[in-house]
Amino acid sequence: MALRGPLFRLLRSQLGHACQQSRAQSVAVLGAPFSKGQKRRGVEHGPKVIRDAGLMERLSSLDYSVHDFGDLTFHHYEKDEPYMDVKFPRTVGEANKTLSGAVSRAIGAGHTLVMLGGDHSLAIGSVSGHAQQCPDLCLIWVDAHADVNTPMTSPSGNLHGQPVAFMLKELQDKMPAIPGFSWTKPFLTSRDLVYIGLRDVDPGEHQILKNLGIQYFTMRDIDRLGIQRVMEVTFDHLLARKQRPIHLSFDIDAFDPSLAPATGTPVNGGLTYREGIYITEEIHNTGLLSAMDLVEVNPVLGASHEAVEATASLAVDVIASSLGQTREGAHASIDDVPPVNDTTEQLRL
Amino acid sequence: MALRGPLFRLLRSQLGHACQQSRAQSVAVLGAPFSKGQKRRGVEHGPKVIRDAGLMERLSSLDYSVHDFGDLTFHHYEKDEPYMDVKFPRTVGEANKTLSGAVSRAIGAGHTLVMLGGDHSLAIGSVSGHAQQCPDLCLIWVDAHADVNTPMTSPSGNLHGQPVAFMLKELQDKMPAIPGFSWTKPFLTSRDLVYIGLRDVDPGEHQILKNLGIQYFTMRDIDRLGIQRVMEVTFDHLLARKQRPIHLSFDIDAFDPSLAPATGTPVNGGLTYREGIYITEEIHNTGLLSAMDLVEVNPVLGASHEAVEATASLAVDVIASSLGQTREGAHASIDDVPPVNDTTEQLRL
Amino acid sequence: MALRGPLFRLLRSQLGHACQQSRAQSVAVLGAPFSKGQKRRGVEHGPKVIRDAGLMERLSSLDYSVHDFGDLTFHHYEKDEPYMDVKFPRTVGEANKTLSGAVSRAIGAGHTLVMLGGDHSLAIGSVSGHAQQCPDLCLIWVDAHADVNTPMTSPSGNLHGQPVAFMLKELQDKMPAIPGFSWTKPFLTSRDLVYIGLRDVDPGEHQILKNLGIQYFTMRDIDRLGIQRVMEVTFDHLLARKQRPIHLSFDIDAFDPSLAPATGTPVNGGLTYREGIYITEEIHNTGLLSAMDLVEVNPVLGASHEAVEATASLAVDVIASSLGQTREGAHASIDDVPPVNDTTEQLRL
Repeated sequence: MALRGPLFRLLRSQLGHACQQSRAQSVAVLGAPFSKGQKRRGVEHGPKVIRDAGLMERLSSLDYSVHDFGDLTFHHYEKDEPYMDVKFPRTVGEANKTLSGAVSRAIGAGHTLVMLGGDHSLAIGSVSGHAQQCPDLCLIWVDAHADVNTPMTSPSGNLHGQPVAFMLKELQDKMPAIPGFSWTKPFLTSRDLVYIGLRDVDPGEHQILKNLGIQYFTMRDIDRLGIQRVMEVTFDHLLARKQRPIHLSFDIDAFDPSLAPATGTPVNGGLTYREGIYITEEIHNTGLLSAMDLVEVNPVLGASHEAVEATASLAVDVIASSLGQTREGAHASIDDVPPVNDTTEQLRL
Repeated sequence: MALRGPLFRLLRSQLGHACQQSRAQSVAVLGAPFSKGQKRRGVEHGPKVIRDAGLMERLSSLDYSVHDFGDLTFHHYEKDEPYMDVKFPRTVGEANKTLSGAVSRAIGAGHTLVMLGGDHSLAIGSVSGHAQQCPDLCLIWVDAHADVNTPMTSPSGNLHGQPVAFMLKELQDKMPAIPGFSWTKPFLTSRDLVYIGLRDVDPGEHQILKNLGIQYFTMRDIDRLGIQRVMEVTFDHLLARKQRPIHLSFDIDAFDPSLAPATGTPVNGGLTYREGIYITEEIHNTGLLSAMDLVEVNPVLGASHEAVEATASLAVDVIASSLGQTREGAHASIDDVPPVNDTTEQLRL
Repeated sequence: MALRGPLFRLLRSQLGHACQQSRAQSVAVLGAPFSKGQKRRGVEHGPKVIRDAGLMERLSSLDYSVHDFGDLTFHHYEKDEPYMDVKFPRTVGEANKTLSGAVSRAIGAGHTLVMLGGDHSLAIGSVSGHAQQCPDLCLIWVDAHADVNTPMTSPSGNLHGQPVAFMLKELQDKMPAIPGFSWTKPFLTSRDLVYIGLRDVDPGEHQILKNLGIQYFTMRDIDRLGIQRVMEVTFDHLLARKQRPIHLSFDIDAFDPSLAPATGTPVNGGLTYREGIYITEEIHNTGLLSAMDLVEVNPVLGASHEAVEATASLAVDVIASSLGQTREGAHASIDDVPPVNDTTEQLRL
């Protein structure tokens, strides 16, 4: 594994992957202040608090050319009746169509894309926009929840619990024609996806995971295997046959609520700080990260200012680590330790 | 290990274990509001706060037939002088006699028994009552402390630090005739017991553990081996020769004080939430859990309402996980993902 | 590894190591209330709060002869202009000269030395004083930071980020003649040093670590290998060829800030309580610990009284564990479990 990062990078450059090639040194940040994929107010302020926690400064220190594309604006339908039990279908569908176009343009222009949510329903637009440019992408979904309910299995009707169902070809005939979503069609197979961090899986979702043979790692699996082995199996599953662009969709609720309290659906027993950073370090080391989402930071739900700041600061750490910040440290390739300045003397012996 | 759950269940049904057979789908909850095994007031409110944290609702959601047998009432001797240094011997002895009978009846009636303490001296009654019905039981003791002092080795004289000494046949000639305990005699050998989570072991206890060759895992052992391996060795030790009923005696102070602050004798460096849940998931997966204690939740000792709620909620998670709640998720055995309702159309392509 | 402790002790006594021989049962505690190696006030109160948290009582309970040598007093130069960018060079140099002498005398007198800082610049004096008595010592540096900047690479000019650079022979020609340090010269090679816990390494430090081939374990390495393997490799690296005295230099900021908040340069994602205790248990088990530093506890920086107490109490646990306190428990070598007193009867059956 120690050689994987450089090795993968070498392989990538040899393969000459058009979708990846020019993106290495340019990052685009795109805010998506949207909350209609779920019921609780506040997650639309996610992009602001993540930026306020110092995202842009941190990314600049990583020697990228960083572009802040600001926040998208979304159309909210005044009349948006539920379809079956699905809430705000037209508003969520339209927002994702907007986001999909913006993501596709940013990736097409050669940027590595960072999407700041907003709720996790936005992954429909983000991943589909990415897939327009990179049809062979694979998806790593870090989350307490599987978010793969269909309208028929969803207990709540909230679309932030259903985005993956819109992506999977195998579920195409299980999905009704939800108003607002005619612009998209499934683009991913169940082999192109790995989940990490699951610990609150609905019965219908469990059935889908099992029936489709999706590779997933619950917190129990992380307890059994350790996070290092989990990442090895993840990459073997997604990248062994060929190198391809990675989309990382990171829900902040994958972390333990003690670390990320300001979120809508916290579940005890989540990732430690170190596990979350390890996941993102490993993804960076593949050299294949092409786009990522950071979603479900909700400042209204923090019990205190400190709770909100901790959650937003954690989001910044996850993004920076995905893009190359390292605990190991790094240095430019100068050959020698700096000598004593000419004007000073050597240490007297 | 992945096959252990189903495999064990199959073996059990083939063995036709009379003590276990009928209990699979019925759970009895029994409160034991008792605190005279130690000095601090408040642990007698444990059953109430654990129920208030939603225990019965949570167990019902697991598809059990759940019976709440309410709380036992205990006789408190007005005149109960210490015997040697042992505090409240007659009151503790009588309470355990009462509990032992109730536990025996519940197990005999085919229930899986959940005893809510109360302090850990109650294990004398709980395990002995269980053993009356299932003489071949084994005992898994999850605790920061070994609770195996004899009256001669105990630094405090509190009986909640001595229950295991009453159970072990090998200690029979080391135990004086304490008033209140003539109703019971040792029923367990040192091979029938495994400790998990120890980190505050008195010198006399250490001597007993070593002299009797008891299998125990301190927090240091968990650091060395990992919790997965600890559970494998635990089951190999207790179940390799034959399948038999498990009694789980879980002291909430096994957890780190940051997770379970509302308890009488917290010790730093305890189990993580995930380790505690992993232990109980593994025990459930054996299919052999026959009775469990959840003890030492003391709402009076929480520094805040939140501290008490966190501790009680953790107790509920431990019990629910022991009885089958899972992070993996589960679904009834339907063959297919629910199809689109007839009245709706397929997703337009 | 289970045999390492006793085995190492046996080897040591066979080797008849003069520097170690007489020290086994005597501990000297030496306070160094000094803060001029960095900018923030308060770390000079470290010795007081660590003592107030019960250090001496805890060490006494370990059956040592414990000597509290009180606090050193240090000379502060009124006029102490920076040299290059190095802050307070004469004051820090003089303080370390004083400390070095005191440490050398204590070690020479046969004590195991515990130095309470103060900031981490004090390690220059502590380790050099130790090396005067035990020239073949090895150094285990537990810290979030590498503290190996030279005046040329240091981003801040604070000397608490540079102590290791004063010790390493390989850096001798990279170090200018800083006023106040003419009394010392490098005494350690890069093979005599192992770092544990790094996660905030400056570029110049990273270059030094790599160029000199120093063995170090970042938090990422601990995530990959586990703390047990880290300690095995540490001892293989330092002790495989010959048994020799260990100097442990423990910066409290090696721990996660949630455990040790009252410190000057906290970094997220640090050691757990259990990892820190495991490290020190393993070091004790070698039987080779000859001196240790516990530095950077700063009571002024705790957000609350509880935060300061938690940090100081953690420092006491680290020191006690380094000197033999154990989670496993221990007992004097009596053959049998205490029998029932003659005046009492056997348990009635």
